Amino acid sequence: MAKELKELTSKDANYAQWYQDLVIKAGLAENSAVRGCMVIKPYGYAIWERMQRILDDKFKETGHENAYFPLLIPKSFLSREADHVEGFAKECAVVTHYRLKNAPDGSGVVVDPAARLEEELIIRPTSETIIWNTYKNWIQSYRDLPILVNQWANVMRWEMRTRLFLRTAEFLWQEGHTAHATREEAEEEAIKMQGVYADFAENYMAVPVIRGVKTASERFAGAVETYTIEAMMQDGKALQAGTSHFLGQNFGRAFDVTFIDRNGKTDYAWASSWGVSTRLVGALIMAHSDNNGLVLPPHLAPVQVVIIPIYRSAEQLAAISEKVDRIAARLRELGVRVKFDSDDTKKPGWKFAEYELKGVPVRLAMGGRDLENDTVEIMRRDTLEKETRPCAGLEEYVRDLLEEIQSGIFRKALDHRARRTVRVDTYDEFKERIEEGLFIMAHWDGTPETEERVKNETKATIRCIPLDTADAEPGRCMVTGRPSARRVLFARAY
Amino acid sequence: MAKELKELTSKDANYAQWYQDLVIKAGLAENSAVRGCMVIKPYGYAIWERMQRILDDKFKETGHENAYFPLLIPKSFLSREADHVEGFAKECAVVTHYRLKNAPDGSGVVVDPAARLEEELIIRPTSETIIWNTYKNWIQSYRDLPILVNQWANVMRWEMRTRLFLRTAEFLWQEGHTAHATREEAEEEAIKMQGVYADFAENYMAVPVIRGVKTASERFAGAVETYTIEAMMQDGKALQAGTSHFLGQNFGRAFDVTFIDRNGKTDYAWASSWGVSTRLVGALIMAHSDNNGLVLPPHLAPVQVVIIPIYRSAEQLAAISEKVDRIAARLRELGVRVKFDSDDTKKPGWKFAEYELKGVPVRLAMGGRDLENDTVEIMRRDTLEKETRPCAGLEEYVRDLLEEIQSGIFRKALDHRARRTVRVDTYDEFKERIEEGLFIMAHWDGTPETEERVKNETKATIRCIPLDTADAEPGRCMVTGRPSARRVLFARAY
Repeated sequence: MAKELKELTSKDANYAQWYQDLVIKAGLAENSAVRGCMVIKPYGYAIWERMQRILDDKFKETGHENAYFPLLIPKSFLSREADHVEGFAKECAVVTHYRLKNAPDGSGVVVDPAARLEEELIIRPTSETIIWNTYKNWIQSYRDLPILVNQWANVMRWEMRTRLFLRTAEFLWQEGHTAHATREEAEEEAIKMQGVYADFAENYMAVPVIRGVKTASERFAGAVETYTIEAMMQDGKALQAGTSHFLGQNFGRAFDVTFIDRNGKTDYAWASSWGVSTRLVGALIMAHSDNNGLVLPPHLAPVQVVIIPIYRSAEQLAAISEKVDRIAARLRELGVRVKFDSDDTKKPGWKFAEYELKGVPVRLAMGGRDLENDTVEIMRRDTLEKETRPCAGLEEYVRDLLEEIQSGIFRKALDHRARRTVRVDTYDEFKERIEEGLFIMAHWDGTPETEERVKNETKATIRCIPLDTADAEPGRCMVTGRPSARRVLFARAY
Repeated sequence: MAKELKELTSKDANYAQWYQDLVIKAGLAENSAVRGCMVIKPYGYAIWERMQRILDDKFKETGHENAYFPLLIPKSFLSREADHVEGFAKECAVVTHYRLKNAPDGSGVVVDPAARLEEELIIRPTSETIIWNTYKNWIQSYRDLPILVNQWANVMRWEMRTRLFLRTAEFLWQEGHTAHATREEAEEEAIKMQGVYADFAENYMAVPVIRGVKTASERFAGAVETYTIEAMMQDGKALQAGTSHFLGQNFGRAFDVTFIDRNGKTDYAWASSWGVSTRLVGALIMAHSDNNGLVLPPHLAPVQVVIIPIYRSAEQLAAISEKVDRIAARLRELGVRVKFDSDDTKKPGWKFAEYELKGVPVRLAMGGRDLENDTVEIMRRDTLEKETRPCAGLEEYVRDLLEEIQSGIFRKALDHRARRTVRVDTYDEFKERIEEGLFIMAHWDGTPETEERVKNETKATIRCIPLDTADAEPGRCMVTGRPSARRVLFARAY
């Protein structure tokens, strides 16, 4: 087994360190010279590209178009929406000058004080303000609505404590920004996109999610309602995997975006916004991977099947290659992403470890005996199970196996979550059990004070008020004993 | 004809205004609240997305992978390569602070002076420096080479005079950054990517280009050689449509990126970089469009065929729709991007003008008489020619017509360039004829002084020293009479 692989910290010994090691050793990302900003390496970016392509198709299927808005936002825009400025204007990158000049002492370049901007510009932490300032010119009448626009972009939030993919100062994301003529339509849009995200998480990432709404204190700054999908990581902590916001008329009002409705009446436009980011790559890793490396769901794996030849002579390699080329061609016809690794400078054992580390879902190996018997050895990455099968019908078998792995990974994550989700009725029990790394369904009196107290005392937050009705019976708050309409989801979170 | 269309300035009256009007009225882009930064609207972005998809496929076919590097670059990085800093460090957006705070007087937010960065950060004008600083950790041995990486990103250069798509402070682009073990390989890479760009320009954008190398004074800051493709716009001016740079060991040296070669010797890595940007959308518009609006080459048109029903009753529309649905389905099977516009609120005449403005290559119209005769009216956007054809075999006809339009547009641009390219031997004739808007092939003595003089006196620059041998015979410089190895391409440029 390769040296690097051996050095992967064990998940149980130190989950955080295991994650960090894995991201680095699998070649997904690394820290850069700029504090808090990561370099996304080719293999990590290939996963993000797969995510992008699938999500982009889904956005277009649901009627959205892409556009692009400026990176920089005039400082004053942020102050236009009162809640928004509190949430976003504080920790952000501020552009104050537009020119450097040679240092008088010849030591490189310095800021030219004469090139100070009249108004400072902020690198977008999110684009509601600049976009709604633009929509003002696009919207006059109900005939101009809805506007269904998405943008793929980089954004920046000056985070103090960062972690590759999960929390970085700069990250990549998509942000949808829609404008509507009615409240109902805007709310429907927000709920629809939460559904798109949930579908993507479950059917592509193989990560089961709980759909719900955020409490007032966890809402997006400027939103009337925030819809979320919450996933459980292997350590029992929650990760917010995507959010979708019903913004009411808050941005319409802040940027004076009015329209004439069907009845000739003037009203402010209604808004939604929604986004997912490169954080999803972190979620993908933490949801499925193991001590041997990544476990990638086939629907997102850049390489789904790797084929490795095991040979003693050039003739043997030629014979194997001939066979493999046919198998690979047929797999590609079936839509499978295949790589034949015949690199001469690396030993099969090294390759086995490498592709395990990289989470390739299926490995095929063909050696001298396989050649004689017309067979191939198949290993599935999720269970590490091996079997030897005849070459006849292999391609269809592998295609089906990929689907089986996809659903197997999902089922495993679902079982894991089921085992680690409990109902708790007293605050004492809650404080004890939250240490185990659980999703806890408990009653809450609906006040921000109680929510805050639980957070301060246990580091657990209300991840969401779930949309499903399984825990919708009324009860009494575990902390205050006051009436509660339904149980909500508490967990510690990334 | 629609009101907006009539208001398009005529190309001959004012080419610059015609361009500006067209970009706005066709819904491609508009200026934003941030000086010099544009909003790329959905239709403009759809064209850019088509370009991206095609180029990205070509980059991958030639062995490149995508990655992502930080937006912000430490100020000191720019000074590491002496020429580079001169070219790029001057007009750029400088981040000096990382926090805002509430203004003491309650009037919004102000920069928090306590949150000053120790070292200022620059929004990338191009990423050689941050990338080579990263490559230092990726490269130890010749086995780690080549590195063939591309990134799709936004960049920023604080331009004083901006123009939608052609020159904006922020723009979108791709930048390839490769590292090699030998000089030959790095040079080959730069030339290969110039070829990829030329192929894209000619076969997708339908824009003929001249391949060449830049003179020393027009080279990329930090390059040993800059390869360029130069296109002629309809007004006879040149537009640099893509560049590819052989960077020698300049960045390897500046960032101390060394490797052990096959013989155990340590050497600096060799580099290339190459990029094209949203500027190409501007080139596309200026190369082909006319006084009726855009003319888009079918290979890049977001919608290739629009079908418009002309009807007097709901029954007639239903009958047309049934027929059109079959035609549209069959066209999609043939890989054609079709839109059926049955929007009830717009008249056919309005739609005709709208899709002409938007440059949809083929328009099909079906009315009552067509229904009776089983025919359809076809108009091609490039020539505005109309014909009526039977529905039988229509789809194959349209598919082939799209290819004919593609090559027709290219041929037209090629003829235009041929007519406006001349050889000139005296500086007097040069000064006269450059006013006509021409590509002028003339002899030059190879000195930056002569080049500068021509630029100052005529606003014409040497666009490139062409790679082809048509004008490779020696002669005498038109300005100084000194010996010249070959004619070079002079033109005024965007």
